[in-house]
Amino acid sequence: MKKIGNTYCFEDPPRVLSYASTVGKKEGEGPLSRDFDYISDDNTFGEQSWEKAESRMMSMALERVLAKGSLTASQLGCILGGDLLNQCISTTFALRPSNVPFFGLYGACSTMAEGLLLAACLVDGEFESTACAITSSHFCSAERQYRYPLEYGGQRPQTAQWTATAAGAVILQKGGKGVKVTRATPGRIADPGVAAQANMGAAMALSAYQTLSRFFQDTKTCPTDYDLIVTGDLGRVGRQIVIELFQRDKIDIKPVYDDCGLMLYHGDQDVHAGGSGCGCSAAVLCSYLLKALEQKVLKKVLFCGTGALLSPTSANQGQTIPGICHLVCLEADH
Amino acid sequence: MKKIGNTYCFEDPPRVLSYASTVGKKEGEGPLSRDFDYISDDNTFGEQSWEKAESRMMSMALERVLAKGSLTASQLGCILGGDLLNQCISTTFALRPSNVPFFGLYGACSTMAEGLLLAACLVDGEFESTACAITSSHFCSAERQYRYPLEYGGQRPQTAQWTATAAGAVILQKGGKGVKVTRATPGRIADPGVAAQANMGAAMALSAYQTLSRFFQDTKTCPTDYDLIVTGDLGRVGRQIVIELFQRDKIDIKPVYDDCGLMLYHGDQDVHAGGSGCGCSAAVLCSYLLKALEQKVLKKVLFCGTGALLSPTSANQGQTIPGICHLVCLEADH
Repeated sequence: MKKIGNTYCFEDPPRVLSYASTVGKKEGEGPLSRDFDYISDDNTFGEQSWEKAESRMMSMALERVLAKGSLTASQLGCILGGDLLNQCISTTFALRPSNVPFFGLYGACSTMAEGLLLAACLVDGEFESTACAITSSHFCSAERQYRYPLEYGGQRPQTAQWTATAAGAVILQKGGKGVKVTRATPGRIADPGVAAQANMGAAMALSAYQTLSRFFQDTKTCPTDYDLIVTGDLGRVGRQIVIELFQRDKIDIKPVYDDCGLMLYHGDQDVHAGGSGCGCSAAVLCSYLLKALEQKVLKKVLFCGTGALLSPTSANQGQTIPGICHLVCLEADH
Repeated sequence: MKKIGNTYCFEDPPRVLSYASTVGKKEGEGPLSRDFDYISDDNTFGEQSWEKAESRMMSMALERVLAKGSLTASQLGCILGGDLLNQCISTTFALRPSNVPFFGLYGACSTMAEGLLLAACLVDGEFESTACAITSSHFCSAERQYRYPLEYGGQRPQTAQWTATAAGAVILQKGGKGVKVTRATPGRIADPGVAAQANMGAAMALSAYQTLSRFFQDTKTCPTDYDLIVTGDLGRVGRQIVIELFQRDKIDIKPVYDDCGLMLYHGDQDVHAGGSGCGCSAAVLCSYLLKALEQKVLKKVLFCGTGALLSPTSANQGQTIPGICHLVCLEADH
């Protein structure tokens, strides 16, 4: 490992052994439908509560990522994971039967990038020969916890994002021939002073811009050195702010820049400013993105997980919304 | 790094550069009062809400650990931290002004051990030259969120633990002369089927026993090879269960075994089964334990952070309480 500025450079890069995604009905009707491992018919995943449904969805992603990597749970080194529910119970109860060493994370919607980054460190540092990053979110459990009961039918402003019902899991290993994690830049908390809970894209955009800027500076690269730069999830509003922040620096990121919140749904799927939730960027990564890298349709991708580090309590107490963005550079095998 | 079984063995062990603890009034009246860096007069830490008070307490711990390590925030490699509040807002708002790369964790009361373990990996793997583990808990913010409003004056059973008002922070570095992190065993989720929220010590005891057993097996050592083994925080009930689980294996852990939840308070301080909360084991570590290791009063200590991975929602939905225990072996410099 070599650290340049803020960026970890993996000299013998950890490789993706396998990846899997399990999603809800609406996500399964989106543009990436063919790339998911499992699409639920009804969002309950056969469970009696939305929280249990979310856990079940995550445990299905774990089962599939293990099977695709030809590993049993007892052969897996460790799992790094978390979710949006209070005390991360989706993750706890999903992983409870696995008996795998577990590191709990809280990174809001940046959790997949945070987990992937730390998994890469544990594999690169030879602490583990395999490490899994996993996360989930569920529209119904998130609405109940963060906003209104579903039955209330609250109106949403156009800046609001739609919490994806989705889970994603990736297993990294040392060596092999898979997609490489070549670089990573840990995020810092950035708070542009946005207080509107229904405009989290705007709150997180600054952190995405800052992490990407640090990465470009550290690596002496520019946006066009990458086939695709994705944030996850800023949605329509946050994406536009990132584009404008880079324009001030005379950098045109637009031609190679997209957002997982916009990639997960069709424009007419009524998700307002786009998708969000830990599962959104995780499911886009663990379906289309890693498949395209595997097939060398994409060769170099910057995966930038963005999280809004608020709670209903902090919002009610008048706090603005701090954001964070962790960046992971993924490259196709040569 | 060498991994033996489940245990990471640091060949050139990361060292403690500095540590600091800030605590509330009750904790300041306990047996460790002389070892804390700051004791608040009134638990508000000068703030208008308990959540802001907890954040302020944590930011004071960060200020002090940086000052004691002669570092500025901009010189610190990264921070790993979390707390008990929904979405870990104590940590987010405490660290927001620091501008240090940040990894959010959720490990409930095991957070300090989890952070210390991952910080040791990042330093040992040369990803960072310094890394800080930090956490907090506050009696009043935890009561409001997990149990009853303080004004309600709810009665507590004798198995209940008292959430400590405390924060702790440690900075690890490569090289130097401080206390060494020589080994670490990541925890696995273990659920003995306890459903009583007011008996979390019993729920977590199994995970402590399992992690310690794995560590003893991996390292071919036994309890008497250590000056002190501490769990944090099982309290009186959970500690007794750990002793009995080891007795079944014909291992007598009792002579060298204590629990941070029992070390933080005097027996007559009305905390029922003992202290708990992320800040409890963090404050005991970042005061008495690290001081004793620094002064070589203790030479080898096993610090075992235990977390109960439940939420009020999971409890209300009839789920039992999964526990986790991360172990870190600390040794005095020779």
